[in-house]
Amino acid sequence: VPLLSEQLGGRVLVQCENLQRTGSFKFRGAYNAVSTLDETDRGRGVVAVSSGNHAQGVAEAARLFGVKATIVMPADAPAMKRARTERSGATVVTYDRATQDREAVAAEILARQGGIFIHPYNDPYVIAGQGTVGLEVAQDCLALGVVPNALIAPASGGGLIAGIALGLHSEFPEAAIGLAEPAGFDDYTRSLAAGAIMRNEATAGSLCDALLATAPGPIGFAINRAAGTRGHVVSDAEALAAVAFAFNELKLVVEPGGAVALAVLLAGRVPVAGRTVVVVLSGGNIEGDMLARALATA
Amino acid sequence: VPLLSEQLGGRVLVQCENLQRTGSFKFRGAYNAVSTLDETDRGRGVVAVSSGNHAQGVAEAARLFGVKATIVMPADAPAMKRARTERSGATVVTYDRATQDREAVAAEILARQGGIFIHPYNDPYVIAGQGTVGLEVAQDCLALGVVPNALIAPASGGGLIAGIALGLHSEFPEAAIGLAEPAGFDDYTRSLAAGAIMRNEATAGSLCDALLATAPGPIGFAINRAAGTRGHVVSDAEALAAVAFAFNELKLVVEPGGAVALAVLLAGRVPVAGRTVVVVLSGGNIEGDMLARALATA
Repeated sequence: VPLLSEQLGGRVLVQCENLQRTGSFKFRGAYNAVSTLDETDRGRGVVAVSSGNHAQGVAEAARLFGVKATIVMPADAPAMKRARTERSGATVVTYDRATQDREAVAAEILARQGGIFIHPYNDPYVIAGQGTVGLEVAQDCLALGVVPNALIAPASGGGLIAGIALGLHSEFPEAAIGLAEPAGFDDYTRSLAAGAIMRNEATAGSLCDALLATAPGPIGFAINRAAGTRGHVVSDAEALAAVAFAFNELKLVVEPGGAVALAVLLAGRVPVAGRTVVVVLSGGNIEGDMLARALATA
Repeated sequence: VPLLSEQLGGRVLVQCENLQRTGSFKFRGAYNAVSTLDETDRGRGVVAVSSGNHAQGVAEAARLFGVKATIVMPADAPAMKRARTERSGATVVTYDRATQDREAVAAEILARQGGIFIHPYNDPYVIAGQGTVGLEVAQDCLALGVVPNALIAPASGGGLIAGIALGLHSEFPEAAIGLAEPAGFDDYTRSLAAGAIMRNEATAGSLCDALLATAPGPIGFAINRAAGTRGHVVSDAEALAAVAFAFNELKLVVEPGGAVALAVLLAGRVPVAGRTVVVVLSGGNIEGDMLARALATA
């Protein structure tokens, strides 16, 4: 991106997962997970819990494999995310984020109708699927003849960043890996600093609806500790400013949670001067009202 | 684009000129034109007339070559386009679209301060620059192993579509070339049907502010006649629906004028079933208010 590169004095490359099928990287992990199921398991159908992007990814992957999907979504999930999940043919079951435990709702569905549960991040096949982002970034850098000094991506449960660390380090073991989280939901940053899994106290209260996982997934956390991943925290205002920047300058539609890594860069919290930095835009499922809010406040 | 391909029963490829530097394809032709100037001419500076996208393209190309740019823009040009032109260091001179002739304003500036005039479309270097879109599409199709049966792109003065026809036909001489224009500004479609250059009567009254040229440029018109280019006309409502589709489904920011070729496709006016069709999104310089209007009416 010439504009960002000139502003920050280095080379900034953008990985556009908002342009992925279903509008986020989640399709990669979901597709990989569903693809590993045998005929018997495919016949049983899949079940997932998600605020919206994993929901769409699983629903669309299931549709492509001819598998029935049941998705547990919070009642306050963005309407666009629910509608797009249903458009892929999935059955959506809602729960109340404040009073119900979504794992329990999913367990009840699995007990009643059977099926294979696809975890949004604590699943090696899901992490491997998200890891194709890291492999593609590595291949693109090789093709461009550049060495990425650092990569930063949004994190919720940490499956994307864990997969990316594995994929990118396979070619560029020296690349620094960073994750970005919304303020109040900085469980991953605190966990990495503490060397042990820490939980968020809040369950709501961020505009980044895609990044509200309560704690790092253990599989990805082990990978990220080994990779030396470092955490960064972004305010809602910074996330909205990044959404507006993507709209005005990059001509890309990015949701608040998908823009937090760009927000870290725009806030100057990652050194860019003289370096090559890759920033991942992880999703673009934003509604018009939220975009208008971002443009009005930026 | 899997979604469009599934909906329309063929293969739809999208060329994203909204992601080009300055947010539209216009940078290509402007850069090529400025690059051909010798040191003496570069020292004299460049002058252009434009409602906004050619303005930004010339301003940014001039900045990169260290050349002074003066741009004549209508007073009612979108504020974003003017601001982005000035950000590139150009001097903007405005005129009243209803009472003043922009060519006369430019001629007066050239007489007073000298400089090289860069026409927005009736210039072989500008057309050649836009033609790199056609070359890139051809290369991408070769890399994908697909033969494009048809390509459709927005047209105003016709420089883009003429350049594309030359570039794409160099590899795929059988590809059908189509252009899309807004209703009320269908001079190119009428001219192609008549075999002679026809003018628009209106000078304002379309949301597609980038597509208001009064008549085809003679150089491009000769190229398009030889290429067998065919015209399509799009209503403002259809253009807005395409802007909303690009936002919601493609996660791309596209301005109304940049979305008219997509609008032709969505309206079912180009056969897609069993074919490979390339659609060009030519620009993304839209303001939040216009996007909100598109989302509200779609």
